[in-house]
Amino acid sequence: MAMFDDEYFMREALRQAKLAYEADEIPIGAVVVWGTKIISRGYNQVEQLNDSTAHAEMIALTAAFNQLGSKYLPEATLYVTIEPCLMCSGALYWSKIGRVVFGATDVKNGYARITGENSPFHPKTELVHGILADECAQLMKDFFAAKR
Amino acid sequence: MAMFDDEYFMREALRQAKLAYEADEIPIGAVVVWGTKIISRGYNQVEQLNDSTAHAEMIALTAAFNQLGSKYLPEATLYVTIEPCLMCSGALYWSKIGRVVFGATDVKNGYARITGENSPFHPKTELVHGILADECAQLMKDFFAAKR
Repeated sequence: MAMFDDEYFMREALRQAKLAYEADEIPIGAVVVWGTKIISRGYNQVEQLNDSTAHAEMIALTAAFNQLGSKYLPEATLYVTIEPCLMCSGALYWSKIGRVVFGATDVKNGYARITGENSPFHPKTELVHGILADECAQLMKDFFAAKR
Repeated sequence: MAMFDDEYFMREALRQAKLAYEADEIPIGAVVVWGTKIISRGYNQVEQLNDSTAHAEMIALTAAFNQLGSKYLPEATLYVTIEPCLMCSGALYWSKIGRVVFGATDVKNGYARITGENSPFHPKTELVHGILADECAQLMKDFFAAKR
């Protein structure tokens, strides 16, 4: 079993999601990986920044562009705990990222509800999902249950 | 004829687009208006910031959130010279903005190519397009013609 597999990096995204949870934000986290190195991290900061576009993926992507000095990420993988929304899937399109790996689907806010049969991603982007899906979804359920 | 009509504010968005043009960026500009006041401006800065998500709308939206201290903009209007892409339409969704007014359609990169019959915007967002469409499109044509 490889040490640096998709589960390994999704656990890192989950750590970011837990930081969001602790900050009373909807618990979604993301990391961008280049080879076996995490080059950026992000978690949902919509409330803290008072910015409804401050999603985990947006923060991680912009940090990755800055880190690499490149506006394209064809050799990188973004891991995110929950299916990206339409905005974030569009951002991933522009980044030309090599792979997108997400955990749990999001029937309400995920991109697929709007895009249907049309993929929002770049044709060269590989998509994987379902990695640690139960853990990623459970964190969301716990958050919303605690809110009620 | 009203002084502060959609054409007036679209001309302000066009001024932003021209700033992008002068900076050798794809010439798209945006402004966010609250009542008759422009509360934020943005133009495409993808090259300058080395960030493929630095679109006019994203910059103008984040500036508007900061300006108003609110992550929602239900009483504001965003004017943008070209049809928003999928990312920007998703960002506008999250902002719950009152109105979106765009100039020219973008058959290649506009949201409608992906979303088809499904609107990406919030149900409460009013959509208007075609304001100064020829001028908005011409600036893009001039830019790409000069690039060839």
